[in-house]
Amino acid sequence: KINQDRLMNDIHTTCEWGKGEPWGDGPTETGMSRLSLSDTDKQARDWFAETTTSLGCKVHTDQMGNQFAIRPGLSNDEPPTYAGSHLDTQPTGGRYDGILGVTAAVEMLRTLNDNWIETNYPVGVVNWTNEEGARFPMSMVSSGVWAGSVPLEKAHNLKSVIPSNDTATMKSELERIGYLGKVPASYKSTPMAAHFELHIEQGPILEAENRRVGVVQGVQAYKWFTVTVRGRDSHTGATSFQHRADALLTSAKMILASHKIATRHKALASTGILGLKPGSTNTVPGFVKFSLDIRAPLDETVEAVEKDCRQAFEAIAAGENAYGVNDLCHPSDRQCSVEWVTDFVSPATHFHDDCISCVQQAGSDLCGGGEVNGKGIGAWGKLMTSGAGHDSVYTNKHCPTSMIFVPCRDGVSHNPAEYSSPDQCGDGANVLMGAVLRYDRL
Amino acid sequence: KINQDRLMNDIHTTCEWGKGEPWGDGPTETGMSRLSLSDTDKQARDWFAETTTSLGCKVHTDQMGNQFAIRPGLSNDEPPTYAGSHLDTQPTGGRYDGILGVTAAVEMLRTLNDNWIETNYPVGVVNWTNEEGARFPMSMVSSGVWAGSVPLEKAHNLKSVIPSNDTATMKSELERIGYLGKVPASYKSTPMAAHFELHIEQGPILEAENRRVGVVQGVQAYKWFTVTVRGRDSHTGATSFQHRADALLTSAKMILASHKIATRHKALASTGILGLKPGSTNTVPGFVKFSLDIRAPLDETVEAVEKDCRQAFEAIAAGENAYGVNDLCHPSDRQCSVEWVTDFVSPATHFHDDCISCVQQAGSDLCGGGEVNGKGIGAWGKLMTSGAGHDSVYTNKHCPTSMIFVPCRDGVSHNPAEYSSPDQCGDGANVLMGAVLRYDRL
Ligand SMILES: NC(=O)NCCC(=O)O
Ligand SMILES: NC(=O)NCCC(=O)O
Repeated sequence: KINQDRLMNDIHTTCEWGKGEPWGDGPTETGMSRLSLSDTDKQARDWFAETTTSLGCKVHTDQMGNQFAIRPGLSNDEPPTYAGSHLDTQPTGGRYDGILGVTAAVEMLRTLNDNWIETNYPVGVVNWTNEEGARFPMSMVSSGVWAGSVPLEKAHNLKSVIPSNDTATMKSELERIGYLGKVPASYKSTPMAAHFELHIEQGPILEAENRRVGVVQGVQAYKWFTVTVRGRDSHTGATSFQHRADALLTSAKMILASHKIATRHKALASTGILGLKPGSTNTVPGFVKFSLDIRAPLDETVEAVEKDCRQAFEAIAAGENAYGVNDLCHPSDRQCSVEWVTDFVSPATHFHDDCISCVQQAGSDLCGGGEVNGKGIGAWGKLMTSGAGHDSVYTNKHCPTSMIFVPCRDGVSHNPAEYSSPDQCGDGANVLMGAVLRYDRL
Repeated sequence: KINQDRLMNDIHTTCEWGKGEPWGDGPTETGMSRLSLSDTDKQARDWFAETTTSLGCKVHTDQMGNQFAIRPGLSNDEPPTYAGSHLDTQPTGGRYDGILGVTAAVEMLRTLNDNWIETNYPVGVVNWTNEEGARFPMSMVSSGVWAGSVPLEKAHNLKSVIPSNDTATMKSELERIGYLGKVPASYKSTPMAAHFELHIEQGPILEAENRRVGVVQGVQAYKWFTVTVRGRDSHTGATSFQHRADALLTSAKMILASHKIATRHKALASTGILGLKPGSTNTVPGFVKFSLDIRAPLDETVEAVEKDCRQAFEAIAAGENAYGVNDLCHPSDRQCSVEWVTDFVSPATHFHDDCISCVQQAGSDLCGGGEVNGKGIGAWGKLMTSGAGHDSVYTNKHCPTSMIFVPCRDGVSHNPAEYSSPDQCGDGANVLMGAVLRYDRL
């Protein structure tokens, strides 16, 4: 069993770097704001390298700044079985998303050492770069490069989307903080036998059903877009509705239509970023740019939502009535134009049966009771699909993969108030270690 | 008659300070970006002070940075008759809004001097500070202080709304650029016999009806608000629509509802600024702040639109269906909150009959023909109400005031492509001078 206090200590110690907004009065009751490749991300990375080295690992960094720590096994002829996640956070994120997965993997190393446990094959711990996609707008981009799914150059040239003066690219920031490694970012240079990732659920299901562990079978599909709407700057007081090409009103209609379309398809559509020009109370904005994030369990559903949104946005820009957004609106003689850029595509993912079994058995070992078979699961846990993307999506392309979820309060994530209790974190860390050891014995 | 070439030369010379985006290939085919109290606004102010001084005026600056240049008359027992406007622009504005009014007033001084014309009473030229309200979010704020309608301290403490690092207040910027004058900003310290303002129409009517001059009888009512919507940051992939409090989707519904409400009241409602937090593709925004600008000819209509918007926004934040914005939308268990701040109120304004007559007669003098009486106007012109606010709204509270409009291409303003031809500018300057001289003789 892992040492729960030591785990919580690692979480809160590393969370001193990049502390965010408070949600309570306690010293650990703040969120996190540790954007990828920032100065505080460098501090967390330094901690990762020093700690895993001191625990007897060999550590290397690849061209995407991914950090791999390897603890030798009895035989080193096969690649390591990995546990890991990411240390970057949302601009106003919490202390558990990603961080729990990496610190629990480090706690696994400590526990193996304390108990003089020798594994058959090496065991690895990985910290993936820019999983969030919050600063550089492709989530899981660095496991994507590792998997050969994202070209290195494209990833290196990603520009920060943080407003203000941040003109950095991934490559310039990797260089600046000293984490542009020499090892090619590839499953060929850093092979994995398997990849296990512990994560908070980021949704309300486990908490609502009072289950301790989620056995994750896969991840839903999603696509990210940047939509640009162009109209005409004009005076808010002297320009009639008829003479306007209002890029913001048009974008508001599009955002609303995307929500209606997603509702109809039982999918999700969300806008998290919106910027406009020129930004003056008495000027009708002539330029708006917004993000669109479409998700659904099936790839076909994401495609269908995208297709309907493209049609609707085209119609709305042309002043036509799509999904009733123009009801009671004043008609206009002027049109806007709309342009789409696809930023990121993550098809639906199905994890590997062997790894799912290891997680399920490790959960049963810890929590006891309940049938353990392909179909059923004990009252302690639930087979589930992740709503959020994870680096495990990309590792699954080149090695057996699965994930472990633990409940989080109110199902809330990407929020400073994100919270899982020490017991919940401890449960997850125990299942993570159990799954890795079970896989090692396979 | 004024010298049209010299006028155009003044316009384009001063527009070298704060040049904006190009709309054509010619050297003067760019817009303007000369925010109030910026470095380039200082350059334009220096030009104003030097030029009017060299033309024989006494120049003083008040506590709001308003610049007053006075050319003595035969008798100086009465206050001057003023012509003026403003030299600040929108962030992506044009070369004529405000600038035409000031340069035409300076050209009037040059023409009076060239022709050794002595007026009965003094003649003044004024450059008002931050008329646009684009940087400091109250339009006409400095004529408002002069009129006793806006408290000096409130105006001095206005903060820049330009995103990024601009943390300036009006007072700090007045000090920084050396334009915090000692003279109290008040109609008592700087009295006016009358105020005439030449301006481009900023709308399409004069152009569409092929008229040379607009005789402005008044200005429509308007109010500015900042609306803040608070929801909850959450994960776009792991949070169902039901569990969201999406401040951006809610704001999109509000912006659309405000448009529908204004349409029903034959009024205008516009949003020019929108900012959100945290601003990440995969985080449902928990915080949005947007501007709302409501206008109508009658004060009662503005009040009615505001009232309906307040009710609708409250309902929309609570998840209710107002103006059909929730049709086809997924219901949510979570609510947003909404808060209003009133930033600025400008009631409907009716200019002074004496000044309106002076403008009408000066128009008739220039363009010839057409009856000149209280009711009718020749084919050359049109009696009209301004959609946009102007400093004349505030001067009208303490001295007879009227305005002169000239056509602008496509009716477009607050846009780099804003354009009035040299002949149109010349017409306006001639009518401005004619109106001032007629008033001087009254
Ligand atoms: N787990 C998580 O928050 N991942 C970020 C990628 C996503 O948007 O789903
Ligand atoms: N004329 C002009 O653009 N004034 C700015 C104030 C307003 O918003 O109407």
